[in-house]
Amino acid sequence: MLRMMDQQARDLVKAIFPPGDVSDEPEDILAYGFDATGNECAPELVAFPRSPEQVSETLKLANERGFTVTARGAGTGFVGASIPVRHGVALVMTRMNRILEIDRDNFTALVEPGLVTGQFQKEVEKLGLFYPPDPASLNVSTLGGNIAMGAGGPRAVKYGVTRDYTLGLEVVLPTGEIIQTGARTVKSVVGYDFTRLMVGSEGTLGIITKIRLRLLPKPDVVRTMLAMFGSVNDSAMAVAAITKEGIIPRTLEFMDKNSVTAVEKYIGAGLPADAEALLLIETDGAKELAEKEINMIKKICSQLNATQLRVARDEAERETLWKARRSLSQAISRISPTKINEDITVPRSKIPDLISKLSELADKVNLPIVNFGHAGDGNIHVNVMTDKNNKEEYARALGAVDEIFAICLALGGTISGEHGIGLEKARYLESEIGKAGIDLIKRVKIAFDPNDILNPGKITPEGV
Amino acid sequence: MLRMMDQQARDLVKAIFPPGDVSDEPEDILAYGFDATGNECAPELVAFPRSPEQVSETLKLANERGFTVTARGAGTGFVGASIPVRHGVALVMTRMNRILEIDRDNFTALVEPGLVTGQFQKEVEKLGLFYPPDPASLNVSTLGGNIAMGAGGPRAVKYGVTRDYTLGLEVVLPTGEIIQTGARTVKSVVGYDFTRLMVGSEGTLGIITKIRLRLLPKPDVVRTMLAMFGSVNDSAMAVAAITKEGIIPRTLEFMDKNSVTAVEKYIGAGLPADAEALLLIETDGAKELAEKEINMIKKICSQLNATQLRVARDEAERETLWKARRSLSQAISRISPTKINEDITVPRSKIPDLISKLSELADKVNLPIVNFGHAGDGNIHVNVMTDKNNKEEYARALGAVDEIFAICLALGGTISGEHGIGLEKARYLESEIGKAGIDLIKRVKIAFDPNDILNPGKITPEGV
Repeated sequence: MLRMMDQQARDLVKAIFPPGDVSDEPEDILAYGFDATGNECAPELVAFPRSPEQVSETLKLANERGFTVTARGAGTGFVGASIPVRHGVALVMTRMNRILEIDRDNFTALVEPGLVTGQFQKEVEKLGLFYPPDPASLNVSTLGGNIAMGAGGPRAVKYGVTRDYTLGLEVVLPTGEIIQTGARTVKSVVGYDFTRLMVGSEGTLGIITKIRLRLLPKPDVVRTMLAMFGSVNDSAMAVAAITKEGIIPRTLEFMDKNSVTAVEKYIGAGLPADAEALLLIETDGAKELAEKEINMIKKICSQLNATQLRVARDEAERETLWKARRSLSQAISRISPTKINEDITVPRSKIPDLISKLSELADKVNLPIVNFGHAGDGNIHVNVMTDKNNKEEYARALGAVDEIFAICLALGGTISGEHGIGLEKARYLESEIGKAGIDLIKRVKIAFDPNDILNPGKITPEGV
Repeated sequence: MLRMMDQQARDLVKAIFPPGDVSDEPEDILAYGFDATGNECAPELVAFPRSPEQVSETLKLANERGFTVTARGAGTGFVGASIPVRHGVALVMTRMNRILEIDRDNFTALVEPGLVTGQFQKEVEKLGLFYPPDPASLNVSTLGGNIAMGAGGPRAVKYGVTRDYTLGLEVVLPTGEIIQTGARTVKSVVGYDFTRLMVGSEGTLGIITKIRLRLLPKPDVVRTMLAMFGSVNDSAMAVAAITKEGIIPRTLEFMDKNSVTAVEKYIGAGLPADAEALLLIETDGAKELAEKEINMIKKICSQLNATQLRVARDEAERETLWKARRSLSQAISRISPTKINEDITVPRSKIPDLISKLSELADKVNLPIVNFGHAGDGNIHVNVMTDKNNKEEYARALGAVDEIFAICLALGGTISGEHGIGLEKARYLESEIGKAGIDLIKRVKIAFDPNDILNPGKITPEGV
């Protein structure tokens, strides 16, 4: 059902916001109809709230007048979750971007949802504190968006994901009520855990207007090492041996042969041409421990036939080692015009099986498949390289995606580690959670949003 | 609404289970109508499931025939959450107590809900692994019960709570469907997070039949220290100074003067009579680090006027230091016949304010109030000592409880850190989460359980 806004509804929404914070001019609305997927669908009106009350009034109107509302942060999502597929109002949360409190005594912070994650990290680090979640988009994406999507990142192997740092929220429900969820403390069992239900609900259950985050003390030092291997299996055995020693590194990043080759072609980082796998490993914490652990890891990698081992001696060398990883996305884009990027996750011991099956699949569909990601937590970004304009090839690529998810589930995995479902993966949802799971999502959605006005058409294949 | 089971309904339930696993004999049903609160309400029939299918069939029948079902583990809860207040069937999960898998490579385990937490911890520790959550009841309580109630424990300050280790569940929904939630991995964002919604939902949204838990490597060593202080403020300043140094101890337990006095009277542990506060502090991890941290903590406590400092040199001394803490519950019970035990939580920097206000309150109501708990995460067990049979005094005690929650909320706290709401705190729920929060709980409950047959009458004051 497509609901369009009549002139009166537009005027009523406009009256909620001061003139500079609302617009239905084409050049404004077009800018808020897409995300990183390239999918696009313009809202009819865009507004920039500065208070929960403005959000509440807009949602109440939406229920009364039958239009839809979709909140968005920086629009860096990979699954179309913030695209207003039924038009209506886009609420862009980026002007609610204040740090309201950093509580050094209790290691918490209170922020607004539009605050950029990387900026927040810099601010807390100045005070000796640490906010671990580090999605690749962190210099652009917002904390509200990170929470709505349940963002992850390389450090998750040691520190967990956004969920693990979200203590409490102020949420405007789809029906307009403003509620407070959670607490200022890690411990709180007071009614259903709506805080974590909001995390990863992709903006379908409420609009976040305040966020209470948990912080940690900033680790004293970080040690960084790059290891090259002649086989994926050796690299996987190194990962297993590291964790078996009781070491949980801060990051444990993996790149396959195609990734290494692409980066080498792109920036000439001096990586060996015959490498089948690369691990980028960091330890952190107290100086002597981080040092001891990186040395143990070096020894393990060496025993497992690492062909090259480089430990950064200073920040500049650390940057050099990360360069290969950071330039990867751009490097891969040179292989083919279109990159289909899936973020499947398997138990980390299944990574060799996964890589081997993906290699067979690449041969079968005759397309490059490039794999890299977070080996420590089994979260691998699988990139099928193709050309959207070549219809026959693109169809083959989409067929490969079907097989990738089937391989992932057969290995005990999950079809999204950190990107979410949105529009892109909705048709695969049932293969993981079953029909009863989908029905339950729909029933909960209706319990929150009886008129289905908030970000409709997401997660479940055909909406509620 | 009280629904009683007719003979046909009883026979149909009995037919689901083999004879030894089901009973409606008075001596059997009476044993499953109470928990640690002393509240009591017998079910009409008790059954011991061994499979999710038996649970599913029972719930389907309950919807058809209009009786209620309440699941329970070991019945150690402190808020009445497992009491079958509308009779019906009690499903005792203790015969589903197998460890189905311990996956050393991926640091996860798959278990059944009736497994005793402490037994599970011993098994994983044999393999060099570690399951941190440690509710005081761990030698009796079950993992399913811990998850249903969102259990905490002393180690939460460093390691988090049960929620943080629950990766995925098999759940029988109130309507009988069996669903799988979550994943085998930390990273997974695939539809709403029903795993964490189940945690702390007190058995009202589904019955857990399998549990996938996250494990950690077992810390190499544990170091234990006891510190006595002449004022609560000094002990709180020590807590603040420790965390400011970037040290997160494994446990950071607090006992107030009344607690110390009670223990001293009970076991004569040699604690100084003039102590106003005791901290029991542990560090763990790699040997050199745990050692370094305990020494730093010792120095901090010393600078902050600790009147006594004892660091355990071996396991035997460690046990001695813990003895004061472990005997506390029994020691306190000697003060008065009735103990009203509330587990409020405040930001840890507010503990001195909390203790001071509780001391004023004790004077005002002329009753002993004994405080101890987890200083590191602000979770303080407040015990109002009274005699249930002295009506006037008991009314005063209950009045004090009202004031305790008001004090807690005014300090930015939460009314339950680890016990939950159940029956006991339902009437205080609105003061923390508001009417809109309660309404949302009811709507979600109905979305899961349209006929309100599963553990009705809990959390919200008057049910749905």
